[in-house]
Amino acid sequence: MTERLDASMSFGPGDDDVVVDPTMKAFRPRHEGQDVRGLIAAGTTLADLALPLVTLSARQVEANLRTMAQWVAAQGVELQPHGKTTMAPALWRAQLAHGATGITVATPWQLRVAAGAGVTAIQHAGAIVDPAALADLARLLDARPELEVVVWADSVRTVRLLAAGYRAASRPLPVLVECGAPGSRTGARTAATALEVAREIAADARLELRGVAAWEGAVPAAAEPGSGDPVADFCDIVVAVFEEIEQAGLFAAGAVPVITAGGSAHFDVVAARFGPLAAGPAPRARVVLRSGCYVTHDDGYYARRSPLAASGGLEPALHVWAQVVSRPERELVVLDVGRRDVSFDQDLPVLLGLRGADAEQTREAIAGAVVTGLDDQHARVAVPAGSTLAVGDVVRLGISHPCTTFDKWRVIPVVDDALAAVPRLVGAVRTVF
Amino acid sequence: MTERLDASMSFGPGDDDVVVDPTMKAFRPRHEGQDVRGLIAAGTTLADLALPLVTLSARQVEANLRTMAQWVAAQGVELQPHGKTTMAPALWRAQLAHGATGITVATPWQLRVAAGAGVTAIQHAGAIVDPAALADLARLLDARPELEVVVWADSVRTVRLLAAGYRAASRPLPVLVECGAPGSRTGARTAATALEVAREIAADARLELRGVAAWEGAVPAAAEPGSGDPVADFCDIVVAVFEEIEQAGLFAAGAVPVITAGGSAHFDVVAARFGPLAAGPAPRARVVLRSGCYVTHDDGYYARRSPLAASGGLEPALHVWAQVVSRPERELVVLDVGRRDVSFDQDLPVLLGLRGADAEQTREAIAGAVVTGLDDQHARVAVPAGSTLAVGDVVRLGISHPCTTFDKWRVIPVVDDALAAVPRLVGAVRTVF
Repeated sequence: MTERLDASMSFGPGDDDVVVDPTMKAFRPRHEGQDVRGLIAAGTTLADLALPLVTLSARQVEANLRTMAQWVAAQGVELQPHGKTTMAPALWRAQLAHGATGITVATPWQLRVAAGAGVTAIQHAGAIVDPAALADLARLLDARPELEVVVWADSVRTVRLLAAGYRAASRPLPVLVECGAPGSRTGARTAATALEVAREIAADARLELRGVAAWEGAVPAAAEPGSGDPVADFCDIVVAVFEEIEQAGLFAAGAVPVITAGGSAHFDVVAARFGPLAAGPAPRARVVLRSGCYVTHDDGYYARRSPLAASGGLEPALHVWAQVVSRPERELVVLDVGRRDVSFDQDLPVLLGLRGADAEQTREAIAGAVVTGLDDQHARVAVPAGSTLAVGDVVRLGISHPCTTFDKWRVIPVVDDALAAVPRLVGAVRTVF
Repeated sequence: MTERLDASMSFGPGDDDVVVDPTMKAFRPRHEGQDVRGLIAAGTTLADLALPLVTLSARQVEANLRTMAQWVAAQGVELQPHGKTTMAPALWRAQLAHGATGITVATPWQLRVAAGAGVTAIQHAGAIVDPAALADLARLLDARPELEVVVWADSVRTVRLLAAGYRAASRPLPVLVECGAPGSRTGARTAATALEVAREIAADARLELRGVAAWEGAVPAAAEPGSGDPVADFCDIVVAVFEEIEQAGLFAAGAVPVITAGGSAHFDVVAARFGPLAAGPAPRARVVLRSGCYVTHDDGYYARRSPLAASGGLEPALHVWAQVVSRPERELVVLDVGRRDVSFDQDLPVLLGLRGADAEQTREAIAGAVVTGLDDQHARVAVPAGSTLAVGDVVRLGISHPCTTFDKWRVIPVVDDALAAVPRLVGAVRTVF
């Protein structure tokens, strides 16, 4: 486990050693060759940056880090946030500084990026079956004794591929049995299969059975409303599998086994159902959540679904700034932002503000304006005929689903507070996609 | 104009000076620190690269470059392919070497990337109304006398913002009047508006009216089938606007005016309708197409729509390689490829092959297999119960819409022929997103 760093530590400066080069679309030619520290010292503000633009807002990121850290601590569970959300080592470090006990990743390449960034506890949320990737992992673990990695398996075949590929390493590879609800994504579909997989792992000296994993985000919705909560029911099945394996004495000795689930939409249900296993002076399990989107939250999917959204505990921290480049019809505005800049897989972005305008001007410009479609480099916005939006205006948009906005920016400028009258540059975050 | 380079020049080595680092997900740890030239010399093959993977296939890229160059030459038109498709200077250079007379871009930042890559004729397909971006453009044109840039305008307000922001440059800025069909994206909606915009440009000494632009890709489909071709009708309107401006004597003296349209789906219609203006010993116009997707083509959107698809003149050159990481139900396979790796905005990817298998094995594995959904890092594939696809298998997929696959890879390996038994690494292409 990584040591718990001071949870009061703020988001910090991020990657302010970044030297601006022409591949960083958030910046202008006059910024090139300067580091972000220098741009901060020169008093750079939001209006000095290029358009279209996505910014991270430090005040909201810091609030979200604190909110989640407090909530997780109050539940008595752990958080190993999914690093694929941001693929930003600076944000991972901030999450670890706020009590996260590791970082979750989705691919062997992401695992290497996390290890390279100094993360010392990594959960690979899925199977690794590529022999070359397993050989690379074995070499990494041989070279880095302090590094802990755990992977998942959901079939006997998977376990055999895992063990065959991982051979020649200095220590056994920790593995979690993955459970999955019928109709969901990966994961063993029955307790019997999960037990069979567990026995296969436990029987192989190259592997260590360290716990049970699942992702409740893929559980199909109830066929009939009011017929119960399928996510809670699924969590109970995962607990039952954990207990069967526990009773069978299959978990590796010497470590408290892990039970892990928890995307960004149902982590309260997971914590409630798994929590009792972690209670008391001799916990039977480490309950590990993996929610990653809380760090920036959003104005769409997670604003509707996050368990901490209703209480106002999370604030959107990713903001999009785009310019009106055409108003060819009274009820049509075209912005300079598109699929290359913002997420569009859950919902289209939403217009939330007009830069440099007061509340009344903003209302006259954007009330009733709706993004109706994105092209690669443009957004089409339906506006009321009376909207005052004009070519040259700069609007602020909110996004839905942070993951697929992060992956469109190699370097994201950090401002002190995107909602301030004059947001000031206070840092930058490098992504690795 | 850029000089026309030898059209017989092949795709060439691309960016084989790329030194592999951990941010390049196509490569493995043992490749890090080596340049692609060294990896080629060492005999690296497709199977040595990481998964999931997207490759460019040199044989198909070269065939597409030749096919398009021949077609464009036969039509007597020019091609300034849209650079936003690939954002890959190595591919832009290959397109220029095959007769392209410039590169089209969509944003001021892309314009800077193209200028920085040595492109000397750049069409900014849209308006620039950000004063800071216009000041940057003026400085760039002052510093680079050989660089030709043209921008578009579709309203009088746009022209005024353009002229105000561009001031203090050493030469006037070339501008095209943009026409747009009602219900489409940008562009003046009537000939009267287009004329008004043309007069505004022609009257401003800081600007030069150089032609007429349009994008036929956004023209709404006919309300009733069989009621004519709305794209052809729109092209005729654009020609009529061109002729009105010509008759009014508004085009800048000393240069043959430009008429430009042509995405990747209707460039045959555009060439047919605009072509006569470029015919004869004293052409009235330079007809400039902007199609960008031909260079890689695809197995989806453009396979159905490209005018050169039916003749077999274009071949898909982007291939996706993904591994089966789970088969939790008989009729469900999960791959390790997701929204972070491939385009999904037009169609989901399609399964086309099984690596290392013969035709019969391939059929038994993937016949009837359909990608039904993508998550950030996974694909869900519905398979017949009898499919032999198993955890560990590596499949080949085709994509739909190249633009949004390119933007997910910072460095794309180039193989000699992705359809060969053992595709060999022959280069790499760096993207700038």
